[in-house]
Amino acid sequence: MPRKQIVIIGGGFGGLTAARRIHHADVVLIDRTNHHLFQPLLYQVATAALSPSDIAWPLRTVFRPQRNVRVVMDEVLSIDRVARLIRLRDSAPIPFEILIVAPGARHGYFGHDEWEPLAPGLKTMTDAVRLREKMLLAFEEAERRRAATGTQDPLTFVIVGGGPTGVELAGALAEIGRKAMGPDFPHLQLDDLSILLVEGGPRILPGFSPHLSTKAAAALARMGVTVRLNSQVSAVLVDGVRIEGELIPSGNIIWAAGNRASPLLDTLSVPQDASGRIKVQPDLTVPGDPWIFAIGDAAHCIGKDGNPLPGLAPVAMQQGRYVGDLIVNQRPPDQRRPFVYRDRGMLATIGRAKAVAQLGPIRASGLLAWLLWCIVHIFFLIGFRNRVRVMSEWVWYYITFKPGARLLYEQPQPPRE
Amino acid sequence: MPRKQIVIIGGGFGGLTAARRIHHADVVLIDRTNHHLFQPLLYQVATAALSPSDIAWPLRTVFRPQRNVRVVMDEVLSIDRVARLIRLRDSAPIPFEILIVAPGARHGYFGHDEWEPLAPGLKTMTDAVRLREKMLLAFEEAERRRAATGTQDPLTFVIVGGGPTGVELAGALAEIGRKAMGPDFPHLQLDDLSILLVEGGPRILPGFSPHLSTKAAAALARMGVTVRLNSQVSAVLVDGVRIEGELIPSGNIIWAAGNRASPLLDTLSVPQDASGRIKVQPDLTVPGDPWIFAIGDAAHCIGKDGNPLPGLAPVAMQQGRYVGDLIVNQRPPDQRRPFVYRDRGMLATIGRAKAVAQLGPIRASGLLAWLLWCIVHIFFLIGFRNRVRVMSEWVWYYITFKPGARLLYEQPQPPRE
Repeated sequence: MPRKQIVIIGGGFGGLTAARRIHHADVVLIDRTNHHLFQPLLYQVATAALSPSDIAWPLRTVFRPQRNVRVVMDEVLSIDRVARLIRLRDSAPIPFEILIVAPGARHGYFGHDEWEPLAPGLKTMTDAVRLREKMLLAFEEAERRRAATGTQDPLTFVIVGGGPTGVELAGALAEIGRKAMGPDFPHLQLDDLSILLVEGGPRILPGFSPHLSTKAAAALARMGVTVRLNSQVSAVLVDGVRIEGELIPSGNIIWAAGNRASPLLDTLSVPQDASGRIKVQPDLTVPGDPWIFAIGDAAHCIGKDGNPLPGLAPVAMQQGRYVGDLIVNQRPPDQRRPFVYRDRGMLATIGRAKAVAQLGPIRASGLLAWLLWCIVHIFFLIGFRNRVRVMSEWVWYYITFKPGARLLYEQPQPPRE
Repeated sequence: MPRKQIVIIGGGFGGLTAARRIHHADVVLIDRTNHHLFQPLLYQVATAALSPSDIAWPLRTVFRPQRNVRVVMDEVLSIDRVARLIRLRDSAPIPFEILIVAPGARHGYFGHDEWEPLAPGLKTMTDAVRLREKMLLAFEEAERRRAATGTQDPLTFVIVGGGPTGVELAGALAEIGRKAMGPDFPHLQLDDLSILLVEGGPRILPGFSPHLSTKAAAALARMGVTVRLNSQVSAVLVDGVRIEGELIPSGNIIWAAGNRASPLLDTLSVPQDASGRIKVQPDLTVPGDPWIFAIGDAAHCIGKDGNPLPGLAPVAMQQGRYVGDLIVNQRPPDQRRPFVYRDRGMLATIGRAKAVAQLGPIRASGLLAWLLWCIVHIFFLIGFRNRVRVMSEWVWYYITFKPGARLLYEQPQPPRE
């Protein structure tokens, strides 16, 4: 008979934090990849400023000192609440007594899933490496075209979604395009590059104060990014994107809008919100099941202001800690205080020495906010070595503008797949 | 009319070295990838000890200070000696006045090219990243199988070819398997791993002295590698390899035997040797064409001992320097001294603190040879930052045995392609 055990689905911020709290019992941590990913820096891999190994840690290495945690690399197909079993693609089902569901989210395409291959998102390392490859090949191709024809044929990047990911990606692309790539491609002129950030709402960074949104938009404009507000994407095509009726030609469309929770959550058969998240109880359990928790991007959890909490790393980490402690203390359902999110602030970086920060009553922008952003992110990086490496990468990048991560592994071949 | 120019095909050791010598004229450097690769350390990426960006440099970054060199990322389809044109897959043909052909080599499959997908080689970054992925997935799968069934089902790696690449790969696999991966896979037992090095000749490292071959074989045996000498591969199958009639079950066969020069050389229509190399003149020109040079793995060049020079980085670099200087000095064909290779020695590493070195009359093995190997390789790494990084990676790896490069980007999916 297998021993009773705690199962955690997902090695992201929520699942990892929970697993690190639990030492008294057997834990099985299941993830589709073999690594924990520092997702907030994923755009830096996508724009070739950092290498994959700078922002990812093998889960087996993370849990090497914690012998009660067993790591299983597999894909969860379904959760059987009746039989108390996790069904996996490659392994035998795993029984659970207590379950934490933290599988994260993909981007949401507003019901147009067929847009995903044409406008990929940025959630996994695979996404980032593919985007990097595509971006570098686009520059190479534009340089070849310019050398051959000399004609104007702008290289347009369209980023859909003006949240932190979209803003950070647009800023990083503008920097690498205008400053770092420029000297390397003698035929390419800087005007050949056009970066468009499309936001459906009236301002970018809607989670921040309107003042900081304006600051961020102005900083992006100075860097050469065109920001289009109140603009909906109505179609994504092979060679462009249709925005409010206008066709914008582009072979490089990146999706950074909306979240769609993992389809795995559907197998729990409990109420979900419009984006697929579980409407959790105040103790983050699924309704009617006091030992199944949903956290992070999987949880629709109402905050103090009456709105659902945003899909941010600090939310997932605090939830992971809360649930981990409930489990360690074997707290019965009627003795649990509700989860309360402590908002320690928000940061978004726009470029070198440019960021916006909102920490309680404090609003900052520019260099100060950027330094804050650096400190916070480096502080949260898990491995000591990576912390030093990423720091030295950044300093070097800051001084030289020579990204060392700019590698194309593949030979340029006709499109595969 | 386009200006007359010098064209170099290939940004490997030979092509890169030549391009760096030439400052007086326009140079076009064509490569299929966007980077120069430090191939002797490729096996360390394949075994997840180093990251890709540690051993590769974007060519555009390398030549940023040298404005007379234009980098073109494209695939050369053919060389037209009559029209003096290089025909490319994606760009317009490039005219040349002087040409250096340095496209490198792939592995040779002794006429069995159909074996390549089943037993991939290790020549490009794509090869290394795929091999790393396959190796890591094999460990994950073995762990799952062990956890599920508890039965014995050994994980066998077969490496074909006992030259430096095969030996270094076998040693690195044994180390990562037995020492680093062990603690991470609690169900996997160390006896589950079997590494087999197959060599067709009577000893491994045939380029070294028999004494050092014996030392290396003994070191490998102590690390758990089975060395089979005088053994020919007669068939490569999906689930194993046939060696001297015996079927060895394995899903992980790696080819490190023989060289097959680039098929591009066939388009020159000059005499080639059995492995496709151009039989060059003493000044490294192709017969009858005093301004077309072939160097590195593309050249069949007779050494002082009457044998063709081996396909090593120092040979390619010395040839690149020789040809670059001929071009800079515009030396007419009748005033050229023949190319002479100065053998500064050979090194092969087997594992941590284990290597063999042969430097003129000096023969060394063990720690001393390994330290020599470290110094030589770090000295030859091009970028300062990478030199420091690779050094710190190694020191860290040496102390902790926790490779940080052990990432699987892809989710495990049914085989693609």
